[in-house]
Formats: sequence, C-alpha cells, structure tokens
Amino acid sequence: MAWLTATYLIESEPERIAERAEALAIEQSVECPLEAVRDPRIRDEIVARVAAIEPAGERRFRVDVDIAVETTGGETAQLINMIFGNCSLWENVQFVGLELPPALLAQFPGPRHGIAGIRALLGAPRRPLTCAAMKPQGMRVPAIAALCRTFARAGVDIIKDDHGIAGQTYSPFAERVAACQAAVAEAAATTGKRSFYAPHLIGTPGVLHERARIAREAGVRVVLVAPMVVGLPAFRELVDDFPEFVYLAHPAFGGAARIAPPLLFGRIFRLLGADAPIFVNYGGRFAYSQDECGALAAAARAPWGGLRTALPVPAGGMRLDRVDELIAFYGPDTMLLIGGNLLLAEGEALLARAREFVQKVEGVGSPATA
Amino acid sequence: MAWLTATYLIESEPERIAERAEALAIEQSVECPLEAVRDPRIRDEIVARVAAIEPAGERRFRVDVDIAVETTGGETAQLINMIFGNCSLWENVQFVGLELPPALLAQFPGPRHGIAGIRALLGAPRRPLTCAAMKPQGMRVPAIAALCRTFARAGVDIIKDDHGIAGQTYSPFAERVAACQAAVAEAAATTGKRSFYAPHLIGTPGVLHERARIAREAGVRVVLVAPMVVGLPAFRELVDDFPEFVYLAHPAFGGAARIAPPLLFGRIFRLLGADAPIFVNYGGRFAYSQDECGALAAAARAPWGGLRTALPVPAGGMRLDRVDELIAFYGPDTMLLIGGNLLLAEGEALLARAREFVQKVEGVGSPATA
Repeated sequence: MAWLTATYLIESEPERIAERAEALAIEQSVECPLEAVRDPRIRDEIVARVAAIEPAGERRFRVDVDIAVETTGGETAQLINMIFGNCSLWENVQFVGLELPPALLAQFPGPRHGIAGIRALLGAPRRPLTCAAMKPQGMRVPAIAALCRTFARAGVDIIKDDHGIAGQTYSPFAERVAACQAAVAEAAATTGKRSFYAPHLIGTPGVLHERARIAREAGVRVVLVAPMVVGLPAFRELVDDFPEFVYLAHPAFGGAARIAPPLLFGRIFRLLGADAPIFVNYGGRFAYSQDECGALAAAARAPWGGLRTALPVPAGGMRLDRVDELIAFYGPDTMLLIGGNLLLAEGEALLARAREFVQKVEGVGSPATA
Repeated sequence: MAWLTATYLIESEPERIAERAEALAIEQSVECPLEAVRDPRIRDEIVARVAAIEPAGERRFRVDVDIAVETTGGETAQLINMIFGNCSLWENVQFVGLELPPALLAQFPGPRHGIAGIRALLGAPRRPLTCAAMKPQGMRVPAIAALCRTFARAGVDIIKDDHGIAGQTYSPFAERVAACQAAVAEAAATTGKRSFYAPHLIGTPGVLHERARIAREAGVRVVLVAPMVVGLPAFRELVDDFPEFVYLAHPAFGGAARIAPPLLFGRIFRLLGADAPIFVNYGGRFAYSQDECGALAAAARAPWGGLRTALPVPAGGMRLDRVDELIAFYGPDTMLLIGGNLLLAEGEALLARAREFVQKVEGVGSPATA
C-alpha cells in the first residue's frame, strides 16, 4: 500500500484538535462513521490516517494526513477530490502541503519544458526573462497587433494576451493570433531577436482544444491558460494533448478555494504541467507577503521527483522602478511580468519604456548574459 | 450596451471603500491604470463601473459592479473570469451576488430537467424526495451493488455513488454501472417502484465524456458530478453534450470562504445546468448556518429568467431523527440525502432503516403524496 500526505492548517482549540484531525481524515476518505466501515481491508487500506499534529501558532495546528494512493486512481480530478474535496467546505481549514510517493508522482509528467526548455526556446541560458501583457481588453485586433509589435521591437521575451482577452467579438481568436504572430515575425526581421506571442486559451474543453489547434497551426509556441478558470483536469488534459506549448499559468479564480498560494501555484500547477506560474507579487495590488512569494518561487523551482522545474513569473501591479529589487529577491531564474505600468506611455515613448524594461532586466543578470 | 451586475462584500475602512470598489471594477475589466485606457469606446463600453456601495456591517460594504456583457463573450469560462477571476486573489473580498441581463441569461440553458423534470422522472409530483449514498469507497462492485439493491428495495428515489467513488481499480466504472443498474432493475421488479442509480462522473473532460457515454448506454438517467472538481466549464460542456441526464451537483472543492454558498451552489451551479445541487446542511459536520442553507435553497428555486428551478439536496452528516425538522424547514420541493447515518445498520436492519427513512420523508408530505 502506498500513501500520499496532505497537510492542512486547522484552527482549533487544543483539546479538540485530535478529534478534528481524525474527522478530516475520515471526511477525505470513506466519509462515513467508522462503525459503518466493516470490511477490515477498507479500514486498513482505504481509511485515511492522521500522521502528525504539530502546533502552528495560537489555536492553530499543522496536520499531516496520509491518504491512500489507491483512492485517487492516479487521476487528476480524483486526486483533487481526495486531497481537498469536502474539507474545502470546512471552516478554518487551509490546504498547505502535498507529498506524493514516487509511483504516483510518476503518473504526472509536470512541465514539458520548464525553466530549461523556456531558456532554450528563448535562447537565453542564464539571464532573467521579460514578459509584457497586452491591455486593455476591448482593443480591436489591429491595436493589439500594434502593441505586440512595439513590445517585440523592444525585445520583450514573451508578449501575452491580458487574461481578460478571450474570444470576444472585438478581438476574435484566430484573427488575433494571426495578426500577433505576424507582428512578432516582422519585429524579429528588424531586430534579429525573436519574441514569442502567448495567446490566452479559455473556454469549455472543446473550445480550448479548438483554439489550441488554431494556435499550433499559426506557429504559436507559448500559451496562457488560467487553470482554475478552465478547471484543473481540463488544464491537465490540454497539456497532455498539446505538449509542444510552453504553458504560462494565470492565477485567476485561484483564490476561490482555500489553498495556500505556494502550494496551488508553485506546486499543484507545476504538477499538472504549468511551465511558468504567474502569481501576484508582494507590494503590488494584492496582499501576498514577500515570504509567501518567496515560498511560491522556491516551490516552483525545488527538486520534486522527476518533474522539471517551473519558472516563477511575479506580476500584478509591478513597476519598472522595482526591477532591480525584484531580480535581487527572486534571482535570475525568473520572468518579470509588467503589464499596465508599461502602458502609461504610448507610441514611441512606449517603445522606449519597454526597451528600458528589457535592458534593466537583462542588465541585472550575470555579465555572461545571453 | 448591456451590463451584468456582480456583487461583492468588501472589508474596508469607510474612508477607503470608494477607492477599493473602483480598483475592483478596474481589476475585473481592463486590469490596467485608467490613464492607459485611451480609446473612449473602451472607457465607455468595457471598463466596469461601481454601481452601488452600501454598508453591510462594521467595516464591511456591499458593492455592486456593472461589468460589460461584451467582455464575457457569452461564454462560461470567460464569465467566471470576468466576475471573480483576479479579485478572487484579493484579501477580504467575497463574491455574493450575480445578476445577468436577459440576453446573456438566455445563453445559459440552466437545468434541463429541474424540479419538475425530476418529479416526472420519479413519478412523485408533490412529496419530498429521498437520496442515499453508497459508502464507504473501497467496496468492490458486488458489495456496492448489494447496497444499491437494499436501498432500491427500501424505495429510496435516487441512490448515488459516494463522491469518493471514481474509477478506482476496486470498483471500475463500467462494471459498477452495469451491476448497479441491474440491482435497481431487480428491486423494481419486486417492489413495483423504480429507484434510480446515479453514478459519479469524474475525470479529465475526455474521461468524463467516455463515462457519460457508458452510463447512457447502460440506461442511466441521473448522474453525480462535482462541478468545482471537474471545472465549471467542463461541467457546462457535459450538460450540453448529455442533456438527457438529471445532474446532481456535488459541492466538493467548492471552498467555503470566497464565494457565498447560496451564490455558488444555488445560483451558479444552476446557471450551468445543475438540476439538483447537493449542499452541506446546517447542524451537520459543516458550519453552514440555517440562514445560509435557507438562502441557498431559495436561490435554487427562485424564478430566474427562463431557467428551470433546481431541487435543493441538503446533506452532510444528516440523521434519520432530523427528517421531520428538515422537511418542515425546507418544504416538499427538497430531496433529503442521508449517507453514513443509514449505514450504521447492516443487512436486514439496514433495509429496515432505509425503509424508515423513505416512509418518514414520504409521510411528512401533504396527504395527497404520490
């Protein structure tokens, strides 16, 4: 028998924590009174077990629960169900850790490219990387393509759709992809440096696949997907079916479940195939702490079985004047994403501002930058 | 131009709420500084607008935000993205309300059966309905089928897989469905009353569809799906592709904190096609209040454009001795789901206990019960 370990932070009076932890283990496995579990095989092999309870602050405990691998069927959706299905509905429980035994982990290929693959694609073996977002949604395709061309002329590595850009009438998917692919090709012919356009894939699973096919035919190499919006199992299936794409994973809708950000974005997204998780940086528009962001980046890059490392992409209210600080904090295996702050300029001034972003990021790396 | 209205509870100092509400409207639409939005069409037609700010307790405000329908593209995944994508990552924001204008609402068929369709299928025009769950997972198929037969002999209306039962090696999907369908048919031949077996569909979108096909071929009429586990867009697509099923929607992975349960389970699940949302009842293993459960049931049944009403299914640590209380509270348009509590008995005693459940529920209805 093999067991995975899921870890939860549970708020509880000390005298009740043992009982709450036991109840959680039952909730996440057989979900019925133990008296109703009469088969000794099920008691021994299926019922989850409390493996450890450690204090983690006042009225707060860190609880490790061993969950039978067999109950997950090695399958993405059922894994989610078993690790944080019903107990997501409990008050005062946060899901904070996940360890999978090797045989189960081997069923999750994780990132198909990872940091090394992204660096190879971009021809940038060591330096920090750049990403810009095309905003605001509502722009028509020629305006989007013009913005894409400007960022590509400035030498930004990856130019992504804003995550609000879907397949709306004002910027239909196929037309947008063709125009932006042409824009990056045109800029590369001038500058000699190739930028990559990353269209946003969003929709029901059938739409996702249809758009992925359109993107592939247009020569797209990098895509943006919000795994929690499309659903984690649909994301996993997309990665399996289109392994040639580098996947930027957007955090939208990620706050709706109570999962610690380092676990959800740094670890679970990576497990399911995200090459580069985008997350909201400390000191921006969101309330993530620096420690939490550091833990997230560390989780994305940490050794984990045979999984490739994933590239942290801090974003969310980032500013040009913070580039040095952020590279110092995150190190070179990072892609900085600046969205709206670049767009405070327009026309030639925007080109200059985007160039400044690229130069600042590339200049901060080691002298032997690519 | 048409606008939908999303409502959020935001915790804030009173002097900052106007600014936070404005920031949320921008976050959920153009996601960049307003200075960077130079096209007047985008400012007028795409940027979301704060429509109302009302106090809702100490340091808490109820904020209505009008979001341009055009930004959603009328599409499930993008609708989620626009109503609670990025702001799900904010601290102290809860998503509590959603109103769609008629033209957008018309793009969501909602439940294909609803309360009336379920009653017609079950041949029970007025009385409260019963549901039992087969637990614990880990049982092999013959044990599951035996349990199914017992519940069917007792006259339970719908007999569902526990949501932990997926396609594990100990109870493979196709074999389980065939055995349980045979069990309900066999019982119906004896009792003259037909019970319906509801298998749990879970997996990546491709697996979901494959299992739905197997279930359809086996004559299944009711299925169990956890929309947040499989992903809301995948759930919507499944309902569209298999409209003949009655969908019981399980709340797993629904989280408890960021989307108000009446909104998520009572309204959004219904919008996407859930015929009967299962939710955790007050006074059980979960901390939902009676008011919240009442609001959820009301949301499922309330008039909403052309959408069919959905059948509330309170569950989660329910007990036989609470049937009268719960029917009194929820009224007859309700399906009571008792899981583990029935299973405290086994063999003939279980049959008697399940019969008691059915008789209690059916007996509490109006004298003219079906």
